[in-house]
Amino acid sequence: MQKRDIGNTSKMYAKTYFEYFDFDAVTVAPYMGSDSVTPFLEFTSKWVILLGLTSNEGSADFQNISDKNGKTLYENVITKAQNWGSPDNLMFVIGATHAESFASIRQLAKEYFFLVPGVGAQGGDLSSVINHGRNDEIGLLINSSREIIYAGYGLDFQEKIRAKAIDVSNKMSESADL
Amino acid sequence: MQKRDIGNTSKMYAKTYFEYFDFDAVTVAPYMGSDSVTPFLEFTSKWVILLGLTSNEGSADFQNISDKNGKTLYENVITKAQNWGSPDNLMFVIGATHAESFASIRQLAKEYFFLVPGVGAQGGDLSSVINHGRNDEIGLLINSSREIIYAGYGLDFQEKIRAKAIDVSNKMSESADL
Repeated sequence: MQKRDIGNTSKMYAKTYFEYFDFDAVTVAPYMGSDSVTPFLEFTSKWVILLGLTSNEGSADFQNISDKNGKTLYENVITKAQNWGSPDNLMFVIGATHAESFASIRQLAKEYFFLVPGVGAQGGDLSSVINHGRNDEIGLLINSSREIIYAGYGLDFQEKIRAKAIDVSNKMSESADL
Repeated sequence: MQKRDIGNTSKMYAKTYFEYFDFDAVTVAPYMGSDSVTPFLEFTSKWVILLGLTSNEGSADFQNISDKNGKTLYENVITKAQNWGSPDNLMFVIGATHAESFASIRQLAKEYFFLVPGVGAQGGDLSSVINHGRNDEIGLLINSSREIIYAGYGLDFQEKIRAKAIDVSNKMSESADL
């Protein structure tokens, strides 16, 4: 019998998502620490997307708490998790609503992808995210969901959604100078 | 269109678990803060079980980080969450493997139920959990899973499991002086 509780459980979750459902990536919350995360990192060609600094209002409740050295919880998470995974199987959720923090977060995890929600409906600014958050290979997966899928409600909803998707895509290319 | 991202999502999760599946309780991780938790607290006669100090090894990675005032993350979670819920719809996960912390945690949340994993297979000590963690109405939901369900592997597995369940139950009663 294994003594571990969470490792045991996380392993079964990971197996279910990555083998049974064959998902490419899973978002994982860091609160329970290493043995809740590492079982997800043991699969080849799969990604763990770890919550870092999320885009929602409540992100300030705990993620911004500073430790004795002035390091915030999200900084501790982003730093420590790099001992568990690599830029090839781990990325971080960094919300677009914190554009002002992107530059310092990029310094903590230079080679890692950031998954960026919060552009569009939540008010995050696309170009400042890209300017402050990109690395040499861009390194940003910017997610815009509601701004696009709710772009139209009438009979022309398909055209409205298409136009919005193209618009967001163009703005990304322009901001990244592609 | 709602500006909120997580509140929006959490509300749909809560609806799914509490209405569609009609579950009595859901374990929720606190990392994303208030708007990831409060939508679950809006349902009548349902429980949110918020991660506090978990029983696994990785719990030390972030939950034990002290802020500038010497307050750990799990203490901040247990304190702040009491602004969102009450002893009638909120309880906390406190792992039995931290028996030495139970007395101080009980002081932070005198009237709240603690859901206590980690007794048995993980090595948590039942009687010290009860001695240090109980309140006037006990206030502890102690979970023992693997110690009981894996008590027997032979044809007599039913008897073995029954005997172990009775044994655990008796130990609880004795320790709580019931």
